[in-house]
Amino acid sequence: MMKFEVTILGSSSATPVFNRNPSAQLLNCNEKCYLIDCGEGTQQQLAKFNLKAARIDYIFISHLHGDHYFGLIGLLSSLHLNGRIKPMQIFGPKALLEILEIQFKYSDTVLRYPIEFFPIEADEPKLIFENSDLTVKTIVLNHRIPTTGFLFQQKKRQRKLIKDKAENVPMAYYTALKKGMDVELPDGEILRSEDYTVAADAPRSYAYCSDTLFDESYLPTIMGCDTLYHEATFMHDLLDRARETHHTTAQQAAEVANIIGAKKLLIGHFSSRYKTLQMLFEEAQAGFENTELAVEGRTFQL
Amino acid sequence: MMKFEVTILGSSSATPVFNRNPSAQLLNCNEKCYLIDCGEGTQQQLAKFNLKAARIDYIFISHLHGDHYFGLIGLLSSLHLNGRIKPMQIFGPKALLEILEIQFKYSDTVLRYPIEFFPIEADEPKLIFENSDLTVKTIVLNHRIPTTGFLFQQKKRQRKLIKDKAENVPMAYYTALKKGMDVELPDGEILRSEDYTVAADAPRSYAYCSDTLFDESYLPTIMGCDTLYHEATFMHDLLDRARETHHTTAQQAAEVANIIGAKKLLIGHFSSRYKTLQMLFEEAQAGFENTELAVEGRTFQL
Repeated sequence: MMKFEVTILGSSSATPVFNRNPSAQLLNCNEKCYLIDCGEGTQQQLAKFNLKAARIDYIFISHLHGDHYFGLIGLLSSLHLNGRIKPMQIFGPKALLEILEIQFKYSDTVLRYPIEFFPIEADEPKLIFENSDLTVKTIVLNHRIPTTGFLFQQKKRQRKLIKDKAENVPMAYYTALKKGMDVELPDGEILRSEDYTVAADAPRSYAYCSDTLFDESYLPTIMGCDTLYHEATFMHDLLDRARETHHTTAQQAAEVANIIGAKKLLIGHFSSRYKTLQMLFEEAQAGFENTELAVEGRTFQL
Repeated sequence: MMKFEVTILGSSSATPVFNRNPSAQLLNCNEKCYLIDCGEGTQQQLAKFNLKAARIDYIFISHLHGDHYFGLIGLLSSLHLNGRIKPMQIFGPKALLEILEIQFKYSDTVLRYPIEFFPIEADEPKLIFENSDLTVKTIVLNHRIPTTGFLFQQKKRQRKLIKDKAENVPMAYYTALKKGMDVELPDGEILRSEDYTVAADAPRSYAYCSDTLFDESYLPTIMGCDTLYHEATFMHDLLDRARETHHTTAQQAAEVANIIGAKKLLIGHFSSRYKTLQMLFEEAQAGFENTELAVEGRTFQL
């Protein structure tokens, strides 16, 4: 089965506290590594959990509040100093590049590797990335400054050959059979795809909803996704505070998971007022059974 | 005795490795807190060692290589979010303010507290700060970009009253006696300062030399200082590499300590090639006996 997992590097909102670091997650899909947000100390967190920063080829930044990107300049600088030459693709708000460039300029740094920057506008959901494994779409969130989440969707995979049966078939027909097409041999015999192949694993999806007011606007984008990461900054008794700061409560995060029909809910981005997280967990789980705390060092199979 | 101590928050050069964080030190002089450099993760380091970021009122940044300032924007943001209202004085290269302001701008942050910014030019040693406890002078270092160290010098303190003797003297004369002046009473009696007071502790000094090629240009500025922090990025077998990158070897750091007549040498800013530091320590100590490793969490009385 193709690897599709996410490791949590930070779960704190706004400021680092109680050994909780600001937002960052490392997604591994088929041994390619995608970094999602990059709060201060992300490179230290990667080292702590024995994850190689050098393996990251794609970085997605949801918005320009510091707890989601202050670690990026340090990570990029360290990769440079450690000899990286392969390109880094970065997706984020337009001004992010300006912020990076001014810091490289004054440190007199010319990166040894190219940054390929893809500015994101938070106006409507868009396909922003695609490779042979997955697509990435933006999720337009409702926060105090332009903010997008990211929806990672695995691609539908071709059917897999049944080895024992396929070895009697000329290889020229494999591609068609794997695509689900039946094949007619020169002698008129029909090879039916379903006799020679099995369906691949169903493609899976992961939605990352970083910072947002709970509202209906972004639900259509993430409808039916398998695993939902959703911020749950506050308990529901602080609903007013959540609304005022454009954040979500644990109860609301569960509600989102229910509405979109998620299979699993990960909650994170916890306010510094909560020294322990058990109550946030229980509140979300009361609304959505398969809830997990997205805390530092945990890896979730997606 | 007036408190005068420094706590090391980071000892790594360039990139964080082996649980060594990039440069940062917290100086406490008479219960006022001065932060010297602020590499990524400094706010997390402060929390780790139970030091209150809120107590910092002065920040000194030596230069704009990221390992000396990437943690500043996060620290300042957290202080804002935690409700700081008192001013923060920041001393550093002119472009530092531009770098901070662009990040506050795009996060739509208007700080609740004022930043008072004092641009430093690395052209000649200058007095840049003075209060009742100490003065701070820049040390013009020789690095790849404009870089200054900082010399913290306690002020000469007034003599201290000997309590038992002073209680028979009208308080109106205390000030003069503490200043070392003899006093004539109306009846002609002479009160000699040395009979009623004792000398205060000698003022002490701390020189912070962050990143520099070993050369003679900055030695006059730090001549005679009590405790010298000096970078010792490499072992002396990598002298060529040290010269090329405008850094110092452990042996050279010891030489600086000897030339200026320091009482104690702290070495830090260790290259990521050294997993353990014992050999760097031994090399420096071979040249200067009273050497210590300036590693995370250690506090040195100055």
